Amino acid sequence: MTNKLFFDVKADVTAFEAIREEQKSIGYYALPEQDLNFLNNYKKEFEEKNIGVEHLVIVGIGGSSLGLKAIYRTLKNTKEFTKKIHFLESTDPIAIKAELEKVELKKSHFFIISKSGTTIETTAIYKYILGLLNEANTNEDYRFTYVTDKGSLLEEHAKSKKSFCLYIPKNVGGRFSVLSAVGLAPLFLIEVDIKALLDGANQIKKSFFENGYIKDTLLQKATYYAKNSMKYNINTLFVYSESFKYFTDWYVQLWGESLGKKQLNSSFNVGLTPVGIIGPKDQHSFLQLIVDGLRDKSVTVLKIRNFNYDIRIPDINLKELDCMDSINKLSFNSLINLQADSIIESLVDKGDIPVDTIELECIDEENLGKFIFYYELLTSLVANLIGVDAYGQPGVEQSKMILKKKLNNRGLL
Amino acid sequence: MTNKLFFDVKADVTAFEAIREEQKSIGYYALPEQDLNFLNNYKKEFEEKNIGVEHLVIVGIGGSSLGLKAIYRTLKNTKEFTKKIHFLESTDPIAIKAELEKVELKKSHFFIISKSGTTIETTAIYKYILGLLNEANTNEDYRFTYVTDKGSLLEEHAKSKKSFCLYIPKNVGGRFSVLSAVGLAPLFLIEVDIKALLDGANQIKKSFFENGYIKDTLLQKATYYAKNSMKYNINTLFVYSESFKYFTDWYVQLWGESLGKKQLNSSFNVGLTPVGIIGPKDQHSFLQLIVDGLRDKSVTVLKIRNFNYDIRIPDINLKELDCMDSINKLSFNSLINLQADSIIESLVDKGDIPVDTIELECIDEENLGKFIFYYELLTSLVANLIGVDAYGQPGVEQSKMILKKKLNNRGLL
Repeated sequence: MTNKLFFDVKADVTAFEAIREEQKSIGYYALPEQDLNFLNNYKKEFEEKNIGVEHLVIVGIGGSSLGLKAIYRTLKNTKEFTKKIHFLESTDPIAIKAELEKVELKKSHFFIISKSGTTIETTAIYKYILGLLNEANTNEDYRFTYVTDKGSLLEEHAKSKKSFCLYIPKNVGGRFSVLSAVGLAPLFLIEVDIKALLDGANQIKKSFFENGYIKDTLLQKATYYAKNSMKYNINTLFVYSESFKYFTDWYVQLWGESLGKKQLNSSFNVGLTPVGIIGPKDQHSFLQLIVDGLRDKSVTVLKIRNFNYDIRIPDINLKELDCMDSINKLSFNSLINLQADSIIESLVDKGDIPVDTIELECIDEENLGKFIFYYELLTSLVANLIGVDAYGQPGVEQSKMILKKKLNNRGLL
Repeated sequence: MTNKLFFDVKADVTAFEAIREEQKSIGYYALPEQDLNFLNNYKKEFEEKNIGVEHLVIVGIGGSSLGLKAIYRTLKNTKEFTKKIHFLESTDPIAIKAELEKVELKKSHFFIISKSGTTIETTAIYKYILGLLNEANTNEDYRFTYVTDKGSLLEEHAKSKKSFCLYIPKNVGGRFSVLSAVGLAPLFLIEVDIKALLDGANQIKKSFFENGYIKDTLLQKATYYAKNSMKYNINTLFVYSESFKYFTDWYVQLWGESLGKKQLNSSFNVGLTPVGIIGPKDQHSFLQLIVDGLRDKSVTVLKIRNFNYDIRIPDINLKELDCMDSINKLSFNSLINLQADSIIESLVDKGDIPVDTIELECIDEENLGKFIFYYELLTSLVANLIGVDAYGQPGVEQSKMILKKKLNNRGLL
């Protein structure tokens, strides 16, 4: 992975010190070096008890699904997996129906993932699934893996059943939890190389904390974003790979929910808005706004050097369209990267759009691990520099209280 | 469809006059009342020549796919269609592979959609498909429908083959073209009720131009957005329906590409940034940023009154989780709408976040037509009020030129 900045700023090293200190209290920093024994044991028991299971159904929302989904969907089209993963992450009845039509209950294992243990969407879907299993007279023993905080009501519930229970380290927040059991357990079961994933993350961690190549770049980028957070209040991640689509969703939560906060010292509302777009598709959608619109956006272009699969445009001449013959014999891998390069060149040329590029060697576990940890570190740094606590989400409580009241006051809706 | 604004502003009626005038030169306004004879004839001939076709494969990007995709994907989970539609809209080799694995060439009909006729992505994929058909010795006659501008090189090419050719009215831009042949032709072939779609659009058109209920609301909303375009430079569309996910992509192009422009009179860079989010999922992702972050966002919440399918949370008591029993026996349709209502209440309560709500009766063609035309009108109004030409996209030309140069200078990549 390389990261090249097309803007210049003196890095604010106070953020480095703050993040180094933060490792003592914030758990995600330690995940790349965690002991994986618990997962080996889990997998062994899972396989004894779940013979014939073909589907892993994830019931979770937000931080309990976005990271896992990103990794799974990004690898899905280039790897063969031993099982399929499905996601139930909405209370939309049509979405639940559509997703459940793809699975056979008797061949499914369900993950109930909730850090607090009492997420309303997750509980609602969980009960719905219990109802279905009940109707179908399907044995529930060992059909569920619960992933939650130690001490939650969900853990208590898990212990009352013949089931599996895994834990989210208490000081790891949902949106920073993809490298904990939340993401690793299902991925490990379908034979994703989680060691390579953690190893990639660890390479970035080491490079940052031990004065490697990524340290200055990350600090400069964070400093620039924080300094200009009122002018460039939108940070666009432009990924030149359809497979990375779900990583933009993960990025949106990580960035938005961590940085959109009242400032610790002033209670001012501050925050940077993440936008994920996909190349080349969004050259025909969002690019015009970046190029000619208000100067309120930074742009990070993600390039994949080697797509794991490639095809070539044949050498076909179409008489009426012979003006297009310059693409003949070109590989799509080269074309998409030439497109990315052209966009980078034209945006840098503007002079007042902060641009940087991230290049990954290919799409594999190690590179995804790097990408994940890079963005987690960047988020922590920017949070520190704009003076907010990256790790809570106090703003969402009010609407939860309103919903609770509505639910308690309802007749049968 | 209803639209309720939780902010107050005096409507700027000059925009109404301007839009009324614009109907003479801009084509999309006339689409709801177009003559559909050409499609009846097309369908008849298509069915004679394409016996056994099960897949429609759309080769198009941006305005040539987003609207069609939005309608298809939104209706897909609640309707039975006679054929499947697939989209090839990227030069990502992995995405092309994954999509083509879903179709059988011999049972496929291909739409090559390009307004200019020389879109590079579309041409590249078209040539790739020609190569595949060639390799498989598959007859090409009547296997393609070309949709393009009259007089384009693609039209010339189409005429050189035994094929179908449909036209985009010349004064209809790509991102406003969903109700032209671009969207209608494939939808009509799979038995979507395109009359109801146009009828819905026409109801909004009439309501607006003939002083109906939507006129004041649209004008007020446009006025507010334009007046506050430097403060609230982000417009969030928060849809409480997973099915509407692809409509947020359509909205992003329509809004961003139409409004992100140099001002006509000043050449200043102006523009409003569209963000599409999905409820309740993004309550666990983006909501924190809206609630506690910088006050730079308006929020439009879309609600569906009756999901066309519903399921109920069973009356199951889980001893350890009995604090969650208030959701028992609730329908998911009710739950998701209670969630939306709670969010609306909490956002309005802040006092400094401009909120409005759109409610659709259900998910069907008529309601989608209304939604589409509502957003098209709103876009035209805001463009007028912030002083930009909604209908071009000059900003994307430079990167196209750079790519052309790179392609002409390349060796074999």
